[in-house]
Amino acid sequence: MASGDDVVPVTLIGLGVMGQALATALVEAGHPLTVWNRSPDKATEVIRRGGRLASSVADAIDASDLVIICVSGYDVVRAILDPVAESLKGKVLLNLTSGDSTAARDAARWANKNGFEYLDGAIMAIPRVVGTEHAVFLYGGSAAAFTKIENTLKTFAPVGTTHFGEDHGLASLYDVALLGIMWGFLNSFLHGAALLETAGVKAAVFAPYANQWIGACTAFVASYADQIDEGVYPALDATINTHLATMVHLRHESTAAGINAELPVLFKSMADRAIAEGHGEDSYAAMIKQFRRASA
Amino acid sequence: MASGDDVVPVTLIGLGVMGQALATALVEAGHPLTVWNRSPDKATEVIRRGGRLASSVADAIDASDLVIICVSGYDVVRAILDPVAESLKGKVLLNLTSGDSTAARDAARWANKNGFEYLDGAIMAIPRVVGTEHAVFLYGGSAAAFTKIENTLKTFAPVGTTHFGEDHGLASLYDVALLGIMWGFLNSFLHGAALLETAGVKAAVFAPYANQWIGACTAFVASYADQIDEGVYPALDATINTHLATMVHLRHESTAAGINAELPVLFKSMADRAIAEGHGEDSYAAMIKQFRRASA
Repeated sequence: MASGDDVVPVTLIGLGVMGQALATALVEAGHPLTVWNRSPDKATEVIRRGGRLASSVADAIDASDLVIICVSGYDVVRAILDPVAESLKGKVLLNLTSGDSTAARDAARWANKNGFEYLDGAIMAIPRVVGTEHAVFLYGGSAAAFTKIENTLKTFAPVGTTHFGEDHGLASLYDVALLGIMWGFLNSFLHGAALLETAGVKAAVFAPYANQWIGACTAFVASYADQIDEGVYPALDATINTHLATMVHLRHESTAAGINAELPVLFKSMADRAIAEGHGEDSYAAMIKQFRRASA
Repeated sequence: MASGDDVVPVTLIGLGVMGQALATALVEAGHPLTVWNRSPDKATEVIRRGGRLASSVADAIDASDLVIICVSGYDVVRAILDPVAESLKGKVLLNLTSGDSTAARDAARWANKNGFEYLDGAIMAIPRVVGTEHAVFLYGGSAAAFTKIENTLKTFAPVGTTHFGEDHGLASLYDVALLGIMWGFLNSFLHGAALLETAGVKAAVFAPYANQWIGACTAFVASYADQIDEGVYPALDATINTHLATMVHLRHESTAAGINAELPVLFKSMADRAIAEGHGEDSYAAMIKQFRRASA
């Protein structure tokens, strides 16, 4: 629940599944909420909870100094807001629509041209966990605007509200970078589960070991990060040559077991290239050079 | 330090870098240690610490009921022990040599034929952490033999000593499956670091978010494991179709930033195949079917 000082009027445009979750969180925190949606019938639940349905986009914007939009794409944001951009002057627009960093930076220039503040956000949460400590909401753009509305933003993510900096593209970039880490983990877990399954091991037996081990791996990430930033890669734990030897085992075990081997093949291919470039005796952090370079 | 009851004589064959670490841990725990190495000069440090250098492999084996071997490969294990296999009768041989599950199962059959107990181990630790709470040592093979020597094994890994079952191949399989998870995490972290670097974000700034987020991802692994074992994949969080949409963003951001895109291309390719097979509205756990199938 926001403190009395922070219970400011909020306008929300877009009542898809995520928009509904945002609306519920805002109303429950006591914010006077005005909504607008292309199909007004989506507002029934919000109205029942005490929200107000505006008669037009301009009417919705007039109601609050903070306007949040969460629709299906950046093109839809512009289609809805371009005709009324003038009315946003002096307000803060928070865009929680999913998109990429280029679209976010373009939107920031459009906001600047039209005289309003702009924050770009990325939601790393399913609708059901919005408003809980499991929700992660990432923000990029004006630090001043973020500070102004931070307490309202904590309505969505009491713990996971993070502002990364003035660059409006940062929310999208962190979003996909973190999702990439999730897929890297999930896919390699699924790979390991498929491999162990061939020896009669249940995924539920493997999972706790996987989860415990990934915790241990966070220490590598922390130490490699410094090496990456400093551009020196002393092999304090294991060399890339040593990694390669066990990657060969993983690929071999996978093909011998008749399961998919695409991940180990890719891992090995990138390690081979790092070694060919003279990084065999460096730490795994030296692999950063392979990731910095556009793939063929 | 092992308790008095467990301070049994141990024989160790192989004094490479890892062998030296094993020897140090055993001597420091008070075990009467007999060692043998092809090059006897490697034993200087062990002798200084109170270990005894045997004059021959047979002499070394005679000294203890528990014989540990840690050499460069399974072929070397056989070359050293085949001529004296008779003298192992009634003893426990613990093989900590790095290898694959087929070699481990072959070695188990060889041990059985020669009348001694066999345990196969995999070391997930660098020499420096052997004997500390950071060391993870994995075992497969006779549960009776494991129980007999478990306290001695805890000398190497007081916390991380794990026996997976009677199948001698399990240590190798868990080893590579867990290493695969490490590479999945490290590579996707490096990918994200390279991407954020293009927006001026230091790897050391990104690392804590990556590490916090991977902790959140362990909840997915736990819930997907049950779905995998049960063969039903209800999308309680997000569907594969939803994942695919953001994978496209990650690939697009990567190519737009001029960095490597091989990981997102592979992730998307596997998701595309799952969707083509009708799993678009299932949870990510349904991707297991892609991993179970041999790659082209």
